[in-house]
This record gives sequence, structure tokens and C-alpha cells, in this order.
Amino acid sequence: MGKIKVGIVGASGLVGGELLKHLLSHPQAEIIYPASDHAQNKNIADCHPFLKGRLNQVFKPFNSLEMQNQCDVVFVAKGHADAFPVIADLWNGRLKIIDLSADFRLDNQSIYEKTYETTHRCFHLSEHSAYGIPELNRTAIKTASLIANPGCYPTSVLIPLLPLIRSDVVDSAVSIIIHSFSGVSGAGATPKPGKNLFLDNFQNVIPYATDKHRHAAEIAQELDKASSRSYKFIFSPNIIPVANGILSIISFQTARPLSQDALMNIFHNIYKNEPFVRIFSDSLPELKNSTGTNFCDIGAYVNSRQNSCIIYSCIDNMCKGAATQAIQNMNILFEQPETAGLL
Amino acid sequence: MGKIKVGIVGASGLVGGELLKHLLSHPQAEIIYPASDHAQNKNIADCHPFLKGRLNQVFKPFNSLEMQNQCDVVFVAKGHADAFPVIADLWNGRLKIIDLSADFRLDNQSIYEKTYETTHRCFHLSEHSAYGIPELNRTAIKTASLIANPGCYPTSVLIPLLPLIRSDVVDSAVSIIIHSFSGVSGAGATPKPGKNLFLDNFQNVIPYATDKHRHAAEIAQELDKASSRSYKFIFSPNIIPVANGILSIISFQTARPLSQDALMNIFHNIYKNEPFVRIFSDSLPELKNSTGTNFCDIGAYVNSRQNSCIIYSCIDNMCKGAATQAIQNMNILFEQPETAGLL
Amino acid sequence: MGKIKVGIVGASGLVGGELLKHLLSHPQAEIIYPASDHAQNKNIADCHPFLKGRLNQVFKPFNSLEMQNQCDVVFVAKGHADAFPVIADLWNGRLKIIDLSADFRLDNQSIYEKTYETTHRCFHLSEHSAYGIPELNRTAIKTASLIANPGCYPTSVLIPLLPLIRSDVVDSAVSIIIHSFSGVSGAGATPKPGKNLFLDNFQNVIPYATDKHRHAAEIAQELDKASSRSYKFIFSPNIIPVANGILSIISFQTARPLSQDALMNIFHNIYKNEPFVRIFSDSLPELKNSTGTNFCDIGAYVNSRQNSCIIYSCIDNMCKGAATQAIQNMNILFEQPETAGLL
Amino acid sequence: MGKIKVGIVGASGLVGGELLKHLLSHPQAEIIYPASDHAQNKNIADCHPFLKGRLNQVFKPFNSLEMQNQCDVVFVAKGHADAFPVIADLWNGRLKIIDLSADFRLDNQSIYEKTYETTHRCFHLSEHSAYGIPELNRTAIKTASLIANPGCYPTSVLIPLLPLIRSDVVDSAVSIIIHSFSGVSGAGATPKPGKNLFLDNFQNVIPYATDKHRHAAEIAQELDKASSRSYKFIFSPNIIPVANGILSIISFQTARPLSQDALMNIFHNIYKNEPFVRIFSDSLPELKNSTGTNFCDIGAYVNSRQNSCIIYSCIDNMCKGAATQAIQNMNILFEQPETAGLL
Repeated sequence: MGKIKVGIVGASGLVGGELLKHLLSHPQAEIIYPASDHAQNKNIADCHPFLKGRLNQVFKPFNSLEMQNQCDVVFVAKGHADAFPVIADLWNGRLKIIDLSADFRLDNQSIYEKTYETTHRCFHLSEHSAYGIPELNRTAIKTASLIANPGCYPTSVLIPLLPLIRSDVVDSAVSIIIHSFSGVSGAGATPKPGKNLFLDNFQNVIPYATDKHRHAAEIAQELDKASSRSYKFIFSPNIIPVANGILSIISFQTARPLSQDALMNIFHNIYKNEPFVRIFSDSLPELKNSTGTNFCDIGAYVNSRQNSCIIYSCIDNMCKGAATQAIQNMNILFEQPETAGLL
Repeated sequence: MGKIKVGIVGASGLVGGELLKHLLSHPQAEIIYPASDHAQNKNIADCHPFLKGRLNQVFKPFNSLEMQNQCDVVFVAKGHADAFPVIADLWNGRLKIIDLSADFRLDNQSIYEKTYETTHRCFHLSEHSAYGIPELNRTAIKTASLIANPGCYPTSVLIPLLPLIRSDVVDSAVSIIIHSFSGVSGAGATPKPGKNLFLDNFQNVIPYATDKHRHAAEIAQELDKASSRSYKFIFSPNIIPVANGILSIISFQTARPLSQDALMNIFHNIYKNEPFVRIFSDSLPELKNSTGTNFCDIGAYVNSRQNSCIIYSCIDNMCKGAATQAIQNMNILFEQPETAGLL
Repeated sequence: MGKIKVGIVGASGLVGGELLKHLLSHPQAEIIYPASDHAQNKNIADCHPFLKGRLNQVFKPFNSLEMQNQCDVVFVAKGHADAFPVIADLWNGRLKIIDLSADFRLDNQSIYEKTYETTHRCFHLSEHSAYGIPELNRTAIKTASLIANPGCYPTSVLIPLLPLIRSDVVDSAVSIIIHSFSGVSGAGATPKPGKNLFLDNFQNVIPYATDKHRHAAEIAQELDKASSRSYKFIFSPNIIPVANGILSIISFQTARPLSQDALMNIFHNIYKNEPFVRIFSDSLPELKNSTGTNFCDIGAYVNSRQNSCIIYSCIDNMCKGAATQAIQNMNILFEQPETAGLL
Repeated sequence: MGKIKVGIVGASGLVGGELLKHLLSHPQAEIIYPASDHAQNKNIADCHPFLKGRLNQVFKPFNSLEMQNQCDVVFVAKGHADAFPVIADLWNGRLKIIDLSADFRLDNQSIYEKTYETTHRCFHLSEHSAYGIPELNRTAIKTASLIANPGCYPTSVLIPLLPLIRSDVVDSAVSIIIHSFSGVSGAGATPKPGKNLFLDNFQNVIPYATDKHRHAAEIAQELDKASSRSYKFIFSPNIIPVANGILSIISFQTARPLSQDALMNIFHNIYKNEPFVRIFSDSLPELKNSTGTNFCDIGAYVNSRQNSCIIYSCIDNMCKGAATQAIQNMNILFEQPETAGLL
């Protein structure tokens, strides 16, 4: 079989750059259509200087027909509401599309429209989409034409939390408290004074959108699907002075007395064959070890006397939280080894 | 009245340097006895180069009689178990002693000895001591001879939490979850591989001593004194890549439905006249604003539907968490304006 | 005598905030007119949250007559070309004005206009101005009405370099090479993508304006005034991942064989009584020791065999390079101890 | 052909970890003998947690015979003077050895012994060694049995400087000034108080070993070999608050008037086919773009009027300055594509 012919819409952005970097290391991927309307005809290396000497191409203007004709898969690395028109334009039922925006993550149109304060004009394509956390939804991903690549925060939260919800060890009467700490790349490459200037972040922690972040809708949806019980939670994101990475600390009361070992066994049993989930039995994971990788690192602390549990989950927000998880999904769609280009 | 004659034991350490720096800006303090056995007769500026041109003295060897004769107050900036022998040696009932170690923070000798894994040989001096958070214990501080300057983490936790415990708004049936994030100075100036080397901290968050940190005993004691109820909590400290500062995020279930305004009013009523507590009504505090100051910055988020509350509390661990709180205590002991040298 | 009544134009900016912070610690200064057109009537603490609890005022709109009537001195913390119209408006011959912009630093109008690409409409006020590096120009400062507070880079370069030029130890046949490394605050608080976003600076060094920086004109002028010889130099600035501070490394060939001791003696002799110049005889200075202070720290390395010399000079760009040097100038103008509020 | 069987001595160290990480991505390398005496029988992932889930092996004790029998190549990642006994022990004339220490970089035994203050007991093996900068010495590398992998600083300096020396554009009458700025990983993983603790490096630049660094001997040797002229230089290293990377700024007077274009053409002509040298024609390189890569990024500024030139050179000290350059050498020794595993 020939190489997978890859297109990227939004290739000049921060996530676009990550996709290009990791796809260049993929033995079976060929970048044939890096599109950017902002930067069309500009050298890619002028925009992403870390790619100088690795990728001697210019950004092409977005052209739907050409991309449909030339590509096997297109990654759409645009913001929410900017992505769905592109996807509607590209849609032909054959081309595989991996959407890194939020536009197809939510199953309910009105929740999407309320959360993202916009009208979704091609929500019907949702029927062809799968929510793209392979560790939780691999079967559906295999046969989908459209992958809704998940949010960075939800990825870091759902991989550790869903198995516990499914195992019924979380007390649904008390709020689950989720504190997430993201590197500044999570705030994007566009200046956001107060959020992502060096002087904002240096020697600082910035809480924002406490209990109001859009990713909460995505977390809520997946919790709801995982159990007949209804769980309540508070999601509280913060920005810390690192470039990449998310640490999510998830605290909850256990539904019943639970030992540290019993909890760790849930993780070991569910994830023992997952190449990108690393369970830390004897310690809590540190953020830096997952930086630059597609791993989700998980550890936990249980206080049995108090029926309290704290989960630590670390990912790289630009990798497992965006670009490399998208490539992992591509590997599944094209029947590649799931780790191809990612280890 | 003449100036306050100040001695420091352990003046060559990290906290010693902070004390010297801030005392130099104090209009009524005179540093007359900076003692260090490790660095005796060495120029202070060779050890603390930021003091070059400000303090042209050498470290003196510790000499109890000289310090008793010459000083009005002595700050003891030694580690736990190293401090109490010094204090026993200095003790004469007249000299004011401000102990920055843990040696007189705990009221119960056996809890101290179990927590710090040592034998305390002059615990009887506790009867003369006061726990030195002025905002919570000013009356006792005024007449004490020995101030137990509190731990950095407990300072950041107790200033926001105790008023809520006293106001009976915290549900005692569910664990209070305390996640604290400390700058690397909290790990001290002695190398601790894995904790405080640049390569350890860069691009990282390091959890440590989860639910096992010694400061938990101090928090537990003060919660117990504040209420007839018994509260359970988990204290989970972490190191983040900043030099100075502690952010403590305290999550709890409320004992009854509570509005955001009702909660903030508790803080406003209790702290409205406190010069070093800043209440953020419309936002959560950011770490950097308290860096280098004696302020404790407090904000809160209440989700009334879930009966959940999250408190953010920021201090500088080396200032309000150590040196400047000690100077605030000195100001109280010597009937100075409490803000002298600190604003 | 009463306190010095201080006004600030541009008080909501980065330098304005530094001025406010340091003036609050000044025993003889009273902030009576903090003006900002952008932020008028807004609480100062909403703009500069580190001042919450210290300064309970709103920004006033700029009003020239009121400022002339109420203030003894006005600091103008605006950008070049925005400052001179304000100064022309405030000018009455009595009011002392300290201009933190570049508008009155250059003696030659056409050089100013060429360098800053603008027309200067009140250059005649230059006759009342003094270039405000006290260590080099104190006599003129004392009697000036208008202080041209110097650029941050020139401050870091001229304090060590001018005495050497005046002592005739620098070989004028070979270029002096000046590499300066500035903290990100030097790039201002306005977003400059590629320059001052966290992702720009993290794990990076950014060279910019090599041999084309506007501050070179200021350095050239002062070198010219210091000697009948003509010196050539290259000024090459860079941004490093620290918030505050400038390290300037100045390399030159010596005009004649010179020992390390002979060179250090030049510095010692000239600066021995200067409270804000610290000479490092046995080592090179490190940036962090001057951070937050008004010090200029100087060290040197001489290789006598090669007739080569390298000078290290460290300042805080926002302090000695801007706000605190301006306050030092205020102290001189108002016959205060020069260190008042600054140590 | 089968895979290249790789051994590593010193695999538990900082450079050892880098070697393991990059070799795991190499399509033709198989790590069969990761040796560490300190950490023998310990899981590799316990020592290098970023390798968890990628490499499920323990460190083996060093065993010369086993390594000779099982390995095609051995990387020796030990400190100077610790490396040569290991190499003497491994030496059999067939096994390829890549030494990442300084032990075989210098051609002259007495210079080595004086520089490194030790006696070299197997200097005769030098006759089989080649200095391992492929861009400058590829022919010799191809047939050598022992590769002296160069120092990080010399790599960053020699790749840009040697072509200029060979082209005779550098004025030998005036000192070449080399200011190098290294990330903290250059100071190693062993605590060095004052050098590599977070509080040492945060908000700081640390000059050290000015004109006395051991790497100067290596630079001097290669300059001498490149020209019949004798050049003098000052090498001045510094530590900056980044984890990885070296920026070397090399300033010199040109031997004759030279345009920017003429200078850049020298680089273009010499390096146009080099996969790991990137020439920046229109700007100076920024450190972060080479981080994590085997690239050496070069830019220059020429002031023709002053006959002055400044070169900027950026590498990752742990990659092109150590581990990946060693792998590049392995690729040459084993007739692999030189970029294998490195792009």
C-alpha cells in the first residue's frame, strides 16, 4: 500500500505546526496538502521555523476539490465554528476527516449552540462522527468518516475518570472537583493580554473560566453516557508557567470504602494493553514526563478512612490533547499500528 | 524610644536572607546581631549578594549571652529540632523570640514528636508561646514572649479557612480537599535532587508528601481549636516552576445552601480592617500579585446548586509564609504600626 | 518641609506601575495626581492588582493646569513622541518634569528626528534638560527643570563604559562589541507577537534590531561627549526568558596593556562613593542580584596577553533602567538623600 | 542486514537518557546493552521516567566481554577520566566506540593532561580516533574505530567559525570574542549549588569559567589545525534559564572589507548539502528552533564600515552537542543514511 496522503486545513496555526512536526516523523504519512488561507504561498519554514530544513513546501490555499481528489485524510485545525463550514465543504463520504475543533464533539445540537454561542449549519454530519479518544471509543473510531478529536482538558480528565465512573466507585452525591493546570500553549498563539504574555505567566498561576469553561459540556456528556447515575462536578482550569502540558487533579468521595490497591487495579485492568496510558502505581506522575509525547500518565491517592480519592493525570495538551491523538486516530482509521510515528 | 535591636540566628540561610532584606527597609529595626555558625566571620554580602552595598557586616558566631544582652528580639531561622535548643539557650523570660521553625507551633508534645520524629527537650516553653498568625491570634501574640511563626502552607490555608469553619458553613461530613502549589524556594536552598534542581522544576509540577506533609498537623490543630465539630481534610502539596509563592486551592461542600455574596461577606466582615488580607470579590487572585509582599490574597467561587465552594488563597511563602509575617509579629510585640517596614 | 507632591502621566502603563510601587515606599513622596487617559476614573488596583490594599485611588484624566497647580514634580511615562506634547503642555519653568521617554535624551534635533522617525515640536525645551544618569551627570541634574531619564540599555552600558573611555583605556581602532540581554518587560506590556508572548520567550533567546536599535544613538552621543576620540561600536540587543533585568556584556581591545587590577581600580576610584554602583572585584555579577533594585552591578575580565577586556553590567531595566533611576533623579532635584525610598 | 546492536556505558546519566530516547526512534538501532554501575538491575524507567512504556529493561552492570561479544557499537557516556579506562577495557580493534567524554578530543597528551588535571593511561588509542563533527571531519569519521564526540560548546562554535577561518576572512590580529549561553542541562544532573538549582537559575544569567573553560583547548586545537595563522580568542560561557540549548555569539574583526552577502555565501557554499546545518540569511536564529533537534542554526550580521562581524549559532547542547551528534556519527560508521532516526 502507498503512503497515507495527508492534508491539513489551518496548517499555519499552533496545532497545525504540531501536526506537521509529528507527521514528518510518521513512516507512512505523506504531507501533500498543507493549507492555510492566512499564509498561502508562504514558505512553511518562515511560519514554523523549527521545520526549516525538514519541509520545503509552501502553504497552499484551501481548495476543497483538490483536497478531496488528492488526500486520503484531512486534519482540520481551525477554531470552533470555523471548522464546520470547511468540513461541510470537504464532505463527500469517502474522504476521512479529523476535526481538531469542538464542532462535532457534542451529540446534542442545542447544547453545542448554547455552549459555543453560534449556529451549527451541518450538524447532521454528526451521525458519521466518532468521539476520538481511542482508549475509550476505539470501535466507533474504526468505522467513522469524521473524527471529533477531543478537547485537551477532557482528554486529560476522561481517560482516568471514565473507568472509575463505569466501575461505580465515585460517590454521585458529592461534587467531583476537577482542577486542571494547563501550559500557556493552551491559550493559543494569538495574543490574549492577561493570559499568554510572558509577563502574565511568569511567576504566576492564572485561574480562568472557573465552572464556566466550554470543555465542561464535553466532560458532562461523556460522564452521562458512561453511567445511568447523574454526576455533578466543578471544572476549574488554570494556566501555569510551562509551555506545554496539562495536569488534571480530580478529587472525589468514593461510593464505598476502597483501598489504594483496589483503585489502581481498576486502572491496570482497563489500560494494561494501552500503549499510550501509563499507570503510576507507587507515585504520582510529574508533568514533564509526558511533555512532547502521546502518553496519558495516571496516578492516584486514596485515603480509605476519609473515603477520599485524588487522581493525577498528565498529558501534553498539544500532543495527546491535540495533534498526536489526531494522528493516533489516523492510524486507527488507516489500519496502521496505533503507535506508528508516535513512539 | 530607640530602635528595636534585632538578632537573627541562622542568618545565612534562605529565610535569614529574607529577614535581613526586609529588616533593612524597616524604619525602626536595627540589625545588630546576625548570627550564623556555618558562615561566621564571613561577609554577609558574600553569602547574600543581593545585600551587597546595603549591609556591610560579617556574620557573628552564635553567642547566647551576647544576644541576650544586646538584642530586644531574636529571630530563630533554623530547621525544626535545631531551633528549640537555641531557644532554650536564649530563654530568659525577657528577650522576645520569634521562632520560624515548627518547634513551638504544635500544642501537644506527643503530636510534635510523632510528626517531626524527634524528642522535644524544652516543650514547657510552649506555655509562653503564641501561634503567630496575627489575623487569627493577635491578642495572644501581643503578650507572648515566644512567637511560633506559622508554616507557609498553614498560613495560606488557615487565613481563608478558619473564618469559614467558625461561621459553620463547611460540611464536616465530607473531606475538605486542599491542593497547595508552592514555589521552589519552599524546598529550601540545600540541593534536593528530584525537587529543586532547575531540570526538576522546569516545565514540571511535582506532587510530594500527599496527605503526609508535616504541616497537616498544624492545620488539623487549628481547625480543631476553631470548632467543636471535627473536620477531615486531605492536604496535597505540589511544587511549581516559580521561585516564590504559594497558591492553596481549598474545595469543600457547604453545610447549607450558600450564595457567592454570602460567602464573600464572611471574608469582608472578618478581614475588612486587616491591612494584609486582600479580598477579591469579582475574580480569583493570581499568584504574582502577592509575590514579594506580606499580603494574603483570597477569592472564592461558590456553586450553590452543587453546594460546592472553592477558595483560592495566595501568599509569598518566603514573606507572609515566613519572614515578613515574622516581622509583622515583631511589630505587634513592640507596639509598632503593624505595617511598619512591610508596605 | 512638606512632602513632595507627585504627579504621573501614563500611570496605567508598565513603567507607571513601577513608579507607583516605588513611590509608595518613599518616605517623602505623596502621589497626588496619577493620570491616565486610557484608564481614567478606573481604580488603580484594577489595573495594577499588586497595588490593591496599598493605593486606594482612581486614575485621573490628564489635566495640565491642575497638575501644574498641585504637583511639585511630574513623571511622564509615555512613549517617545507621545511625551513631548505632554511636556510642552505642562511646561511653566517651575514645575519639575522627569521624562522617562526618549524625547529629550538626544542633544541634536535632527538625530532625534531621524532616529525616532518623527518631528519634534518642542525641542527648544532641551536647553532646560539634563541627561539623567546621576553617577555621570549629577551636577547638571541638580539645577535642571527637565530630566531626560535615560534608556534602559544605555544606562547599563554607559555606567561601566564611560569611565573607561574617559580613562583612555579603550582602543578606538577596533569596534566595541556590546551584547545586551533584556528581560521581557523591556518589550513592554502591549502584545508584540514574536517578542513578548510566553511561547515566544520560553526556552528561547531572541536577537532583534542588531546594530539598528534606537538606543544606539544615545550611547553614541554620550561616548562622543566623553572623549575627543571617535569610538565605533556594535550594539546588539536580545530578549531572554526573565521578566526583569538587563545584562550588558561589553567587549573591547584595550589601548595599551592593562592588568585586571588596573582596570578594577578605575571603577573603584570613580564609583567608591556611589550608593547605587556595586563593583565586583572577584567575580562577575549575576543578573538576579540587581533585580528589583536601583543598583548597577559591574564586573570585568581582562586578558592582558590579548589586550582584551570584557565588562559585565547588570541592572533591573524597570528600576535603574526606568522607574527607580527617575526617583533617584527626583531625590536630587528636591535635595533628598539620594537613597531615599530606594534602599 | 540486521539492526545495529547498541551498548551504552553510563546509561543512567543525563546524556545516557538522551541517547536512549533518540535511539528508540532509530529504525535501525537496537538497544541491547544499557549499562550502569550506579543503577544496575534497576528498571530504566524508574531512573528515566519519560521512557516508561517505551523501554522495559533493567540497567545491566558493565561487563566488557559481554559488550564486546554482543554489541556492534558502544556509546560511552561517562565523565572525562572515567571514560578512558572503560574504553581501554572495551578496546579490541573491531568494536566501534563513540566516546561522549573529552578523553580523546585533544591530539596532544600533555595538553589533555594539563587541561583535565589527570593522567591519561591509554592515550595511544588516539591514533584510531576521529574528532566527531561530521560536517567538518566526515572522511576521517568513516574509517575510525573510536569517535571523540565533541564538546557541546565547541560544536556550537566550530561549525560556524571554521569555514570562516579556512576562508581567511577573520582578522588574526584582534581577539575573537565568543560568548556562549547554555541551558542548565549543560551543568549536569548532579547538584552544583550556585549553578543548577532552580533558585540559582531563575531570573538569572550565570557567567562562569570565563576564559578558563576546558572546552577552550578543544576550540584552540581545531582553529590551529584549520589555518597556518595563529588566532587568539576569549571564550566566555554563561548559564541561562532554559533547560536545553546553546547560543554562541562569536564576534570578530574581518580581515578585509566584507559584505553581508559575501559572508553568507561562505556558509551557503560550504553547508548547502548538509542536512543538519541551517543557514538563516535574513535573520538571526532563535534558540528554541533547534531545541530537541540535531540542527546547528547559523546566522550572521556584518557591519562593513566597521569591519565587524557577529555570528549567532544555536544548537541543543544535549542533542547536536551530545547525544544526537553521537548517533549521527554512528550512522556514518554503519553506512546508514546520516539522518536516520534524527529527523
